[in-house]
Amino acid sequence: MSRRLKLIIAYDGAPFSGWQSQRDGNAVQDHLEHAFRKISTEAVRVHGAGRTDAGVHALAQCAHVDLTETKLTPAEWTNALNANLPRTIRILSCRYVSQNFHARFSAKGKTYRYRIWTGKVLLPLELGRVWHVPGPVDVDLVRAAASLFVGQHDFARFAANRGKMERDTIRTIRSITLRRQKELLTLEFSGDGFLYKMVRMIVGAIVDCSRGKISVTELKKALAGRDGGRRLVAPAAGLFLVRVRY
Amino acid sequence: MSRRLKLIIAYDGAPFSGWQSQRDGNAVQDHLEHAFRKISTEAVRVHGAGRTDAGVHALAQCAHVDLTETKLTPAEWTNALNANLPRTIRILSCRYVSQNFHARFSAKGKTYRYRIWTGKVLLPLELGRVWHVPGPVDVDLVRAAASLFVGQHDFARFAANRGKMERDTIRTIRSITLRRQKELLTLEFSGDGFLYKMVRMIVGAIVDCSRGKISVTELKKALAGRDGGRRLVAPAAGLFLVRVRY
Repeated sequence: MSRRLKLIIAYDGAPFSGWQSQRDGNAVQDHLEHAFRKISTEAVRVHGAGRTDAGVHALAQCAHVDLTETKLTPAEWTNALNANLPRTIRILSCRYVSQNFHARFSAKGKTYRYRIWTGKVLLPLELGRVWHVPGPVDVDLVRAAASLFVGQHDFARFAANRGKMERDTIRTIRSITLRRQKELLTLEFSGDGFLYKMVRMIVGAIVDCSRGKISVTELKKALAGRDGGRRLVAPAAGLFLVRVRY
Repeated sequence: MSRRLKLIIAYDGAPFSGWQSQRDGNAVQDHLEHAFRKISTEAVRVHGAGRTDAGVHALAQCAHVDLTETKLTPAEWTNALNANLPRTIRILSCRYVSQNFHARFSAKGKTYRYRIWTGKVLLPLELGRVWHVPGPVDVDLVRAAASLFVGQHDFARFAANRGKMERDTIRTIRSITLRRQKELLTLEFSGDGFLYKMVRMIVGAIVDCSRGKISVTELKKALAGRDGGRRLVAPAAGLFLVRVRY
């Protein structure tokens, strides 16, 4: 009988080809499956809570694996996996869970953070961790634009491929919190689920709005689905998967 | 007649061979001098406020150059230099200063920050930016150890080569502030000047003390110069030059 192990994983998105397994073998999932094979010789499939694109970071991605033969404790798994992973991927913790738990299907919600650097010069230590949008920011306008997206909406127009990969494009964003620390603007999104590139397209729209390229009224129409215009997609580097809620 | 330009510079220490010009041409100083040559064709020497070792970061290093022929404004210099530097080195600002100003000799003091990660697992996004010292920390003991170094002392025993590169090894540390944010411990040192590797050797001693490898009393003796024992040098990655005071 197999046992299901739940993993909490942090990674720097920069060196990897995203979460999902790729031919180049350099996706986070590939590195995790490779580490399992080195420890247990067993070929396991790692099921993530969701995909993150190349360049997107995770502070606490979640995944599960089914292991048929293992006597390792969760703490031993954590240590063994970390010993076999690149240092830019870390297992924060493991625990055995019931077969009813599924990293993707049991997820009740997620929190993403998006970081925008508004200073003229991008600080070297912020490279790959922010979107550089130099210039003054009207925080009230950003707040007004962000607030449009809170609640239940059909986000088809704020998803790559207009959400065609999903049967249902209605999602609920529970909150978007805005924080400003000097030249850094941070938006934190909590919701029941997010479509492909949805956070990055919402951030793109908010920034377009803050730059006066689209008005709050036009943005409202776009969200209501009466505007088929092309959307700006904020770069991957500024995005962080903060946590998955179960 | 030449004009003296003062530069404030930030860099990620990881990709470079330290501040001071090296044969490999990969020191921060080399990159800066190279950028000047590309802009003005003039071979200039960049004088820094002080050297930082390979791996040490700077939030606001200071330097000056003498330029014989230039019509560029400080803002134009900032832009032109940044356009010719790797993105891991950024000019934050420039201004013309009097010939009496010297980046090194006019400096009245410096502030350094040292970051220690005490969590069991080192987060990927903290790689190269902290010293990983896993395990519980007795913050009171760290505070007691740190407080020994505040004030005027002969720091010969807390300098690489015992400060033989300097005639005078007496320095004054004005303050050491300690901050704890979950698994991150930050020590900030302000003083009139620091000997080679002095901050890293003090941090090494504080960590040795917090781990019980040396008592506060022994540390006090060591500082008084009655102990010639070998000192632990904290790694470069955790060190940040925060600012230079004039």
